[in-house]
Amino acid sequence: MRLVRVGAPGSERPGVIDGAGVLRDLSPLTADIDAAFLAGDWAADVRSALEADTLPTLEPGRLGAPIARPGNVVGIGLNYADHAARAGVAVPSEPIVFLKASSSVVGPTDVIRIPSGSTQTDWEAELGVVIGAPLRLCDDPDQALRSIAGLVAADDVTEREHAASGPTWAKGKCHDTFCPIGPWLVSPDEVGDLQDLRIELWVNGERRQAGSTAQMTFGVGELLAYVSRHMTLHPGDLVLTGTPGGVAGHHASPAPYLRAGDVVELEVTGLGRQRTHVVAHDDVSARLTDDTARSRPEQVPAGQETRP
Amino acid sequence: MRLVRVGAPGSERPGVIDGAGVLRDLSPLTADIDAAFLAGDWAADVRSALEADTLPTLEPGRLGAPIARPGNVVGIGLNYADHAARAGVAVPSEPIVFLKASSSVVGPTDVIRIPSGSTQTDWEAELGVVIGAPLRLCDDPDQALRSIAGLVAADDVTEREHAASGPTWAKGKCHDTFCPIGPWLVSPDEVGDLQDLRIELWVNGERRQAGSTAQMTFGVGELLAYVSRHMTLHPGDLVLTGTPGGVAGHHASPAPYLRAGDVVELEVTGLGRQRTHVVAHDDVSARLTDDTARSRPEQVPAGQETRP
Repeated sequence: MRLVRVGAPGSERPGVIDGAGVLRDLSPLTADIDAAFLAGDWAADVRSALEADTLPTLEPGRLGAPIARPGNVVGIGLNYADHAARAGVAVPSEPIVFLKASSSVVGPTDVIRIPSGSTQTDWEAELGVVIGAPLRLCDDPDQALRSIAGLVAADDVTEREHAASGPTWAKGKCHDTFCPIGPWLVSPDEVGDLQDLRIELWVNGERRQAGSTAQMTFGVGELLAYVSRHMTLHPGDLVLTGTPGGVAGHHASPAPYLRAGDVVELEVTGLGRQRTHVVAHDDVSARLTDDTARSRPEQVPAGQETRP
Repeated sequence: MRLVRVGAPGSERPGVIDGAGVLRDLSPLTADIDAAFLAGDWAADVRSALEADTLPTLEPGRLGAPIARPGNVVGIGLNYADHAARAGVAVPSEPIVFLKASSSVVGPTDVIRIPSGSTQTDWEAELGVVIGAPLRLCDDPDQALRSIAGLVAADDVTEREHAASGPTWAKGKCHDTFCPIGPWLVSPDEVGDLQDLRIELWVNGERRQAGSTAQMTFGVGELLAYVSRHMTLHPGDLVLTGTPGGVAGHHASPAPYLRAGDVVELEVTGLGRQRTHVVAHDDVSARLTDDTARSRPEQVPAGQETRP
């Protein structure tokens, strides 16, 4: 089951891509793909509605983030050994936890805006987990996995210089547009083994990251359980599970950090492909991108992927 | 103008304390004290309604946080010279920014729950700023101040050992119940000079913190402008502005960290007084506290303060 949100920013409609690849309107079932919807048995509800053929078709358009704004966005640092090694730090003995601003979430074909004065805006392709059932003080990774409502591809965009300036990472993780997710929210049954997903990222068609969730230091269930012992995870929350090696900061000097005009593509097995556009912080025309995306030839239509 | 939210967790009603100290129901004006309400000219709207006498009285009850769950909760670290000095670190040359989980926000008479295994749960009395107008890429502290919808007293509860375990502070800042705010949301006109407010905190009647916002390294306008250059501040967001010296970790060994049974009181000039109760992580009876608060003799009634 692949869910999307379609429409202008702030007024997206919920949709589902049916078995024939047709976009169907989920509005008869729910006003949005939000905490209340995700806390229920959403995949069964959508399947029933599809079988009963009660969902009208929905006109394709700009894809928003496939979930409504999360209550919290939790990130995990250095969870792939090759990323830690190339960053020159030890593999952590416990998960590194940080937060991203929930206001940083954007859709899978939106812009990534380079912060004012930034020279080190970097990509991080990741598996994103969306919570469906509250998880608190959990010690059992298997139980933790059962709290998952669905999975998304995610880019944990990071300004390296800002992240390194001070005893926390927030300044480099929270900028607007720094969390493109989607294109789809996919039900766990359709994704299969969460520790056997390929994660790839290209910049301007050149592959920069190529890893597998098999390389995680702490697996998804372990991560969720660990986080749940520091804060309750609520329906609709988003947990980013770390990135494999190959971010810009790992490359030889000068590192190929993102610059205005770049196109970032990102794919996780079964979760679809993003295609985001990098713009300068003061690019006023880019503010219109979301509204005009429907007429952009490079937009990724729902249910369809292109390869660079 | 002093706003409150009254009722059981998750079903609070908005209210205002009128000039005679009577609690009035704001429901005719707004369903909640949320982003949409705070983005408007709320103080003028409430004043008009009070003058027109269109607001029914509201029965006192448990006080919730005086704002609906924020989109983001931003914290500022080491913003008072005496706090930095007693923590043994240099006064920062730029503000230290971190996030708290928005799920950590609770009301001013709720419980603070000690995390499982924690031995270093600490208090931090602070001035909290609630945003009313979006603020982005701002360079002007005076302009930044005009984005404020109101002020709250806040306790930036922190687990020191968790905060120190890794390159970010999130693990020590995000636990459930770690952000009591209120009792009131107060309009800026009623608070006056934000850099001349007394901040005090008592544990079991013993005063532990006594400072003034005059001692901030970076003033409120400067902080908001600085944060806005790293992330857009949106209506309803909460910014905590740092704590003066006197937290438990500053005291002689053994430091008097919070323990189950403690009562924390906290007051900021003009913003009222909190009275929270510290409980163990597995204190199931305490889960009922919020629902039974109405009958608790130690509850602080709306518009009324007690001194230890």
